[in-house]
Amino acid sequence: MNNHDLLIYNTLTRTKQKFVPLQPGHVGMYVCGPTVYGDAHLGHARPAVTFDLVFRYLKHLGYKVRYVRNITDVGHLEHDADEGEDKIAKKARLEQLEPMEVAQHYTNRFNDAMKKLNVLPPSIEPHATGHIIEQEQLVQQIFDAGYAYESNGSVYFDVEKYNKDHHYGILSGRNLDDVRDASRELDGVGEKRNQADFALWKKAQPEHIMRWPSPWGDGFPGWHCECTAMGRKYLGDTFDIHGGGLDLIFPHHECEIAQAVAAQGKQMVRYWMHNNMITINGKKMGKSYNNFITLDEFFTGSHPLLQLLHSPGALSQHRRLLERGAASLGKRPRTPYGGHQAAGTHRAAGCRHHRERVCRKAHRRLLRRARRRL
Amino acid sequence: MNNHDLLIYNTLTRTKQKFVPLQPGHVGMYVCGPTVYGDAHLGHARPAVTFDLVFRYLKHLGYKVRYVRNITDVGHLEHDADEGEDKIAKKARLEQLEPMEVAQHYTNRFNDAMKKLNVLPPSIEPHATGHIIEQEQLVQQIFDAGYAYESNGSVYFDVEKYNKDHHYGILSGRNLDDVRDASRELDGVGEKRNQADFALWKKAQPEHIMRWPSPWGDGFPGWHCECTAMGRKYLGDTFDIHGGGLDLIFPHHECEIAQAVAAQGKQMVRYWMHNNMITINGKKMGKSYNNFITLDEFFTGSHPLLQLLHSPGALSQHRRLLERGAASLGKRPRTPYGGHQAAGTHRAAGCRHHRERVCRKAHRRLLRRARRRL
Repeated sequence: MNNHDLLIYNTLTRTKQKFVPLQPGHVGMYVCGPTVYGDAHLGHARPAVTFDLVFRYLKHLGYKVRYVRNITDVGHLEHDADEGEDKIAKKARLEQLEPMEVAQHYTNRFNDAMKKLNVLPPSIEPHATGHIIEQEQLVQQIFDAGYAYESNGSVYFDVEKYNKDHHYGILSGRNLDDVRDASRELDGVGEKRNQADFALWKKAQPEHIMRWPSPWGDGFPGWHCECTAMGRKYLGDTFDIHGGGLDLIFPHHECEIAQAVAAQGKQMVRYWMHNNMITINGKKMGKSYNNFITLDEFFTGSHPLLQLLHSPGALSQHRRLLERGAASLGKRPRTPYGGHQAAGTHRAAGCRHHRERVCRKAHRRLLRRARRRL
Repeated sequence: MNNHDLLIYNTLTRTKQKFVPLQPGHVGMYVCGPTVYGDAHLGHARPAVTFDLVFRYLKHLGYKVRYVRNITDVGHLEHDADEGEDKIAKKARLEQLEPMEVAQHYTNRFNDAMKKLNVLPPSIEPHATGHIIEQEQLVQQIFDAGYAYESNGSVYFDVEKYNKDHHYGILSGRNLDDVRDASRELDGVGEKRNQADFALWKKAQPEHIMRWPSPWGDGFPGWHCECTAMGRKYLGDTFDIHGGGLDLIFPHHECEIAQAVAAQGKQMVRYWMHNNMITINGKKMGKSYNNFITLDEFFTGSHPLLQLLHSPGALSQHRRLLERGAASLGKRPRTPYGGHQAAGTHRAAGCRHHRERVCRKAHRRLLRRARRRL
């Protein structure tokens, strides 16, 4: 084992921390994988590539790594707030297929794309539908601990109650009032006691194909359950690293933490790692925003954006660079980067450079770069 | 849809039958997939290639085919008679891995090999561990119908009782006395009422990692349950085609039929199709016989047998051809093929040729071929 210290930026503590594994020489890592109801796009590839690097680097350091990346094939509803149809069931309905045919098709396509990106397969790739019993056990534990209630055949997590004993928002930095305010925009409270509560188990309506028996009647698990249940099953009640995209911090990972703490009285994850988003023109790439480039389009270059020499995003970025560079040398500072020189201050203005000389040089470079590009 | 009749040799009726799907235009097909505890060998590839051809041909005929091929990742014990350790758990123990790491690794390798063989992925590839609830439901149905009994935390299928009402051996042509005689060679009866009975649910010993809660206590499903449970889940209580290797007819497929009939009172499968075995020197290629060529060895040619110009098997086959050819023209017939000429009879001697002239010609050809090769 190499003795170099590995520092990890832990989203939970908002600091870089020295990585010390729970079991010397071993690392357990869980990363949220794709919901398999459509072709993966660049945004889906980013966490896979990011944590592939982490996986490889940990192995390079000599650790024996058990890397779990799940396949979500049930429970992910159209809207995060437990509303709407199951994403895979909807696709299956539209294509007149068995939901598992849809899930299998897109799982295969995802794995093929990962291979093309030279992303290593994880050690275990568990499916949400393959762990219904484990999810029911988790719900039962939360129920027994008093942090869940049944309502019309569904089971919800009692966020208000949990927040009295623990801290709901520990990862995302939100407090319950924010969550309540954000939630109010949605549909009426319905079955939930409070709008911030989230589903642990949803009752299956008669038309639902994906359904399993449970102590609360036929239904299916809430989206957040699978990762907590499968993480614990394959990595233990406490494990080293949990990863995923920044967009999953709330509600998904926040709910995972609440579920684990409610069920077992202690945190499940020691280091939370998040990758940033792929953006198009400053907006997160997402299926729901319809601004995505699929991996197939990426491999073949067949997306219109990939056929431009400069994407519109790049052009506006270059213009910004030019303005910033000009401002940094001119009399009329427009940005903090350029502004601090005229003001005579330096770090106080938010400049990232330590010495003014470096700073001036850097700004001149910016200007040259920007001119060349326009 | 093409109107040409498709004839299928149905192992259940031992006849070629015109294929008529249950739902016009649609075909449901289930094929037994690999037990993922080691690298696949040529013997494992044969059913995959065979039923890939069937899959492609049915689609070519215009059918919409739902093709289910399972992954056995729990329940397959070392010996077919419900004895010994779980194959995957054993490998995991030996390699100090979580069983699902073993299963994932060999599932990936199997699928990679299938891609190299140009075998299409099936529509659904369900895992046994992913369908524990469905298997428990099946066991409960058999229990409720009176064809199962509990013994020391395990549940067994009551073959004697079933055979009184139905026909155990309908597929394999065995009768219960044969089975009893064959079974007697094994260990003592133990928990079973009768040695021919088979496990539906096995109690987990304390050291077992792969275990799930059930109405009969913590345990894991018997090997035969998964195919019945997953076939019914994805293809319905009755579906068109069930395939697999000849070696699975007994006990696996026989037990599948018994389970389905016991649970639902009627046959589950309309056409049973079986592929023959890959043999090495006349013996079935199998992991347990240690006479296998893995697909990796096959692709790279790195197995010693693949480096011979003539395999030992081919040489002895050629010698047989020579003897047979000589005998067919000479005075001293040694085989039925050659013998009938001297005897003046023809078809009666078991010759496959209709007319004697064809026959003599064929035998001369055999001789020439054999001489050339030696």
